[in-house]
Amino acid sequence: MEQVLVENEVQQVKLLDSVNDDHGGVIVELSEAMDLKVFALMLKASIALWRSQGKRGVWIKIPIELINLAEAAVKEGFWFHHAEPKYLMLAFWIPEGAHTLPANASHCVSIVAFVMNNKREVLVVQEKCGKFRGTGIWKFPTGGVDEGEDICAGAIREVKEETAIDTEFVEVLAFWQSHKSFFEKSNLHFVCMLRPLSFDIQKQESEIEDAQWMPWDDYVAQPFVQKYELVDIYRAKEDETYFGFPPVPMASKHPGQKSYLYFNDRDLKSSKV
Amino acid sequence: MEQVLVENEVQQVKLLDSVNDDHGGVIVELSEAMDLKVFALMLKASIALWRSQGKRGVWIKIPIELINLAEAAVKEGFWFHHAEPKYLMLAFWIPEGAHTLPANASHCVSIVAFVMNNKREVLVVQEKCGKFRGTGIWKFPTGGVDEGEDICAGAIREVKEETAIDTEFVEVLAFWQSHKSFFEKSNLHFVCMLRPLSFDIQKQESEIEDAQWMPWDDYVAQPFVQKYELVDIYRAKEDETYFGFPPVPMASKHPGQKSYLYFNDRDLKSSKV
Repeated sequence: MEQVLVENEVQQVKLLDSVNDDHGGVIVELSEAMDLKVFALMLKASIALWRSQGKRGVWIKIPIELINLAEAAVKEGFWFHHAEPKYLMLAFWIPEGAHTLPANASHCVSIVAFVMNNKREVLVVQEKCGKFRGTGIWKFPTGGVDEGEDICAGAIREVKEETAIDTEFVEVLAFWQSHKSFFEKSNLHFVCMLRPLSFDIQKQESEIEDAQWMPWDDYVAQPFVQKYELVDIYRAKEDETYFGFPPVPMASKHPGQKSYLYFNDRDLKSSKV
Repeated sequence: MEQVLVENEVQQVKLLDSVNDDHGGVIVELSEAMDLKVFALMLKASIALWRSQGKRGVWIKIPIELINLAEAAVKEGFWFHHAEPKYLMLAFWIPEGAHTLPANASHCVSIVAFVMNNKREVLVVQEKCGKFRGTGIWKFPTGGVDEGEDICAGAIREVKEETAIDTEFVEVLAFWQSHKSFFEKSNLHFVCMLRPLSFDIQKQESEIEDAQWMPWDDYVAQPFVQKYELVDIYRAKEDETYFGFPPVPMASKHPGQKSYLYFNDRDLKSSKV
């Protein structure tokens, strides 16, 4: 490790190990326990060096077991950028002026799954938790899309988890945003149509009270459905007069990582004819 | 504050102030500095009480200036749920079995703005930062949607900020996901069409190198556009043969909060005729 002079004291202070990021900044990943005062000195010395090198953003990733060290970074002016269960990421901006670091994630993504078999029955569930618990309401399977997961993959996975039904993804029929769904965050809800590939339901014990194939007319007759804006879309889809956004594989920039462009490919095909 | 017996010691320990949440749990918002050991004792006693009351999830919100207290919560088994610049939210689950607390936000949301005037010119910019910096490439305005902001509002705001052009939102033409856009998070990109309501460009000094109305044919002639999947959609839209998802106001559950359902309303209208 290098040695530097800190604030005119002639003193040898170790520097923090860091790697450069792609935006003129540095990333520090703490992994070893150390004395809080020692860490504070190392951090001060490291910032002085990074400043002299013209570095911009500084990231410090603190694993949960070293959370006691966060205090020293906060005293130097770091703020919290984001956290996951096992770590806290702090950020700091060396140059004058407003920082240009990326924002923290702002949205959760969830899906609603419209799955109809060829007997005009839809796949519906009653949940053990949530606002519909104990109401007797039969609703379409819903669930959260994981980070790093595509919407089409998340919809297939959620239907499989809740009901054991295999499906193929057809298209996104519609979407909406809800805000402050938990604390300050927003939620993007994608209404998806899937085609069933299997028919024997096995409900998930932990989350699902009951699941069934329900005749479409019985589903629609439920009072909450009468007021439900999406039913017109489901009806039009059933009549084959509605076209949403199916996922079309994109020529991906990252080999091995599949990406999809969701758009109205029927319109595009007909415009090319 | 109440008094309880902790671990058979006959000792008076204050409890943490908490409020109940809507899911059988409690929320603690720390606001006053205290000794780490005192906080650890109060937390232990509070958890014992909440357990006896059958409480489920426990949230502790620690403001950045009290980050030294996080250590005690981690020792009790709390993990990090999420963080924002000024606070860290820790979570704990009292019952046996897996927790059912909501996931942290997983996605950033951004927009690409396709804005064409009636001279077949598109609104394009050159950015001061980012991967296109210094390449001479003219691209459509892009930007991030804030948490709590609707996609249509975010698109209008970003175009205004970067170019001073007023617009009205027409529709979402397409969208795609990219993963690991920063750290482990994903990004949802919405390609939006907007109609210009003003025409005098004033570029944003901080982020935009240059901005102009560019003839469509010149835009398309750029090498990067030749390989760009979205161009066929822009072309079809220009020919009025493509229909995306415009936002249609929803009967909102929360009065005063406007929500939009994005869907193919042309198909729906024609199916009702």
